[in-house]
Amino acid sequence: MGSVQSGTPDRFVDDPAFAVHEGGKLSVRATRPIDTIADLALTYTPGVARVSSAIAAEPALARRFTWASRVVAVVSDGTAVLGLGDIGPAAALPVMEGKACLFSEFAGLDSVPIVLDTTDPDQIVEIVAALAPSFGGINLEDISAPRCFDIEARLRERLDIPVMHDDQHGTAIVVLAALRNAAKVTGRTLADLRVVVAGAGAAGIACTKILLEAGVGDISVADSRGVLHSGREDLTEIKQWAAESTNTAGFAGTMVGALAGADVYIGLSGGSVPEAAIASMAPDAIVFSLANPTPEVDPEMAARYAAVVATGRSDLPNQINNVLAFPGVFRGAIDAGARSITEEMKLAAATAIADVVGDDLSPGHIVPSPLDRRVAPAVAAAVAACVREQ
Amino acid sequence: MGSVQSGTPDRFVDDPAFAVHEGGKLSVRATRPIDTIADLALTYTPGVARVSSAIAAEPALARRFTWASRVVAVVSDGTAVLGLGDIGPAAALPVMEGKACLFSEFAGLDSVPIVLDTTDPDQIVEIVAALAPSFGGINLEDISAPRCFDIEARLRERLDIPVMHDDQHGTAIVVLAALRNAAKVTGRTLADLRVVVAGAGAAGIACTKILLEAGVGDISVADSRGVLHSGREDLTEIKQWAAESTNTAGFAGTMVGALAGADVYIGLSGGSVPEAAIASMAPDAIVFSLANPTPEVDPEMAARYAAVVATGRSDLPNQINNVLAFPGVFRGAIDAGARSITEEMKLAAATAIADVVGDDLSPGHIVPSPLDRRVAPAVAAAVAACVREQ
Repeated sequence: MGSVQSGTPDRFVDDPAFAVHEGGKLSVRATRPIDTIADLALTYTPGVARVSSAIAAEPALARRFTWASRVVAVVSDGTAVLGLGDIGPAAALPVMEGKACLFSEFAGLDSVPIVLDTTDPDQIVEIVAALAPSFGGINLEDISAPRCFDIEARLRERLDIPVMHDDQHGTAIVVLAALRNAAKVTGRTLADLRVVVAGAGAAGIACTKILLEAGVGDISVADSRGVLHSGREDLTEIKQWAAESTNTAGFAGTMVGALAGADVYIGLSGGSVPEAAIASMAPDAIVFSLANPTPEVDPEMAARYAAVVATGRSDLPNQINNVLAFPGVFRGAIDAGARSITEEMKLAAATAIADVVGDDLSPGHIVPSPLDRRVAPAVAAAVAACVREQ
Repeated sequence: MGSVQSGTPDRFVDDPAFAVHEGGKLSVRATRPIDTIADLALTYTPGVARVSSAIAAEPALARRFTWASRVVAVVSDGTAVLGLGDIGPAAALPVMEGKACLFSEFAGLDSVPIVLDTTDPDQIVEIVAALAPSFGGINLEDISAPRCFDIEARLRERLDIPVMHDDQHGTAIVVLAALRNAAKVTGRTLADLRVVVAGAGAAGIACTKILLEAGVGDISVADSRGVLHSGREDLTEIKQWAAESTNTAGFAGTMVGALAGADVYIGLSGGSVPEAAIASMAPDAIVFSLANPTPEVDPEMAARYAAVVATGRSDLPNQINNVLAFPGVFRGAIDAGARSITEEMKLAAATAIADVVGDDLSPGHIVPSPLDRRVAPAVAAAVAACVREQ
């Protein structure tokens, strides 16, 4: 398995990404050795029957005597994978394996990638609901909008374990953390800010929601046809919600038009933004240009006008990376026995991420490094405390 | 998690089975560390996008660059768990975790337990089919008869990865291995034997099939109402098949009646068999009494009449344990890239298990110890060779 046919040159040899993926990135092992007949008779039959009987009589014991409560399923149908789009379940699997690696590395959680050979929302909901007794949490991933909103909402309603679509809420949590610190470092509060969110997909909608909850003063959301407003008749249900919840001035122009005098640009859409639009923003502007690998706003250009610039790229300062959020959010939710991930828990997570930066705060350091091992425990503690308060 | 309330006596402390299950029995970890930004950028975004793109363009690359091809899902709906019956998915999970441990320990395969919160066969088939791109093999487990026959058949038809219901075929393979050696040690061939199979559930039917394929001369199968014969009008489809394929003499009596003069008793039903029935068997009888923890035939009593006695118990000689079969069967099938597990592969597995006993063959040693680390590689090699021949 995985070996190269002799004599055939291996076209993957020059790209270290393929070397890292050779044979896959995960392994499942028994936590205790099976060396003796006694080990076998306790791990498997007949001993296991006593454990199964105990759980059948008292279901809450599953939390103590199975692994389910510490396992997060990373579930995708492969319809919106990174910037690649609808590439299907098999091609999505490396991304889900990668996510499972990060749950393990950063939160000490176990995680299993599950890619589904169906794109039907009803079927996805039924499948994930049926799988639920196997897991302690469900991380939905790379499911296309607007299907993702409905699938997540229905699973949250049906299941009593944490369910979170990370492309929405992981991104939203880290954006809020970054914006908190960007406001602080430029001497403003969230309520002071006029924000333009470019993109009304999974991440754009979730960022809008969390920024509203966090008290951002003025938000406009734009899709490819311009700023969302109540007068538009081409809106999906969720965009209709966004139109009604934002843009209080009823601005009906383009995203570029909305940027004139705005304090914050949050790019979650791809495409490119002209220099004049960035130049038209308010003084001390904040530019989060999160398309990967090519930011919507050239970061060097942005730096000429903005006080704070963040991207999704690992080779630039201020990387907005979901790994700052999801490991700690699930760890905290699971540790505290949460039955869902609430808005309060997400807000607490964002504050915890922002606070890790502490005295190191500067325009070039508004979020911790994605490798900062302090982040996941801090987020987990904040989320768990929030659960216990509720 | 898993801690005991202070001051509360822990009623599980005296049973080592609970200690072995504390916190669950499995762990998923990344195969490579994530210590640097470069590690992160290769394991996850942006590097993973190149791997996903390559698989999207050439799906066969999933075998090389994901873990799926070496992962076996152990799938149950919890309807027929050990001797406990329909205890549901949460209570079944310790058994599936145990099985996953054995895949890891004996075959070096990764394995994920999946318990389903549905008992509807149509839904189970749809769910497992949708999960298939996540895995390299499907071990169905503890699904009640006759549903298990239909579910397995439909999944085998639909999927191009190995699917095996272990309660049927794992048991059948090990029973055949044991019977080969029992015949040998008593100086007979399989064709010489008149066999009574007591039990027409998952294991009884599968044993009947494999014994027919292996050339056993005369088989009768009994359910709780007596020996199956074509004249009975109370038979399910699969029992109808068994009635037509066995009992060529058209015997219409009880299981006990069929034992008179029989060479082999294979108990897969529970209950108990009177001493007179065992006494009525042919000289040098072979008694496999596999109900657990209480064999249908008292092993001490059986030893007074039979030349070879085997049970499912780990504290007695000749333990018939599925762990002799399933790790090697899946390992061999996966190593050879098999798209299904065929009858030939099962027969090859049985022969390989029997052959491991070699010169140590004696009436008290017809199968290897379940801990014998030579078994799984021998089975895997035989199964893989069989795939390559086909």
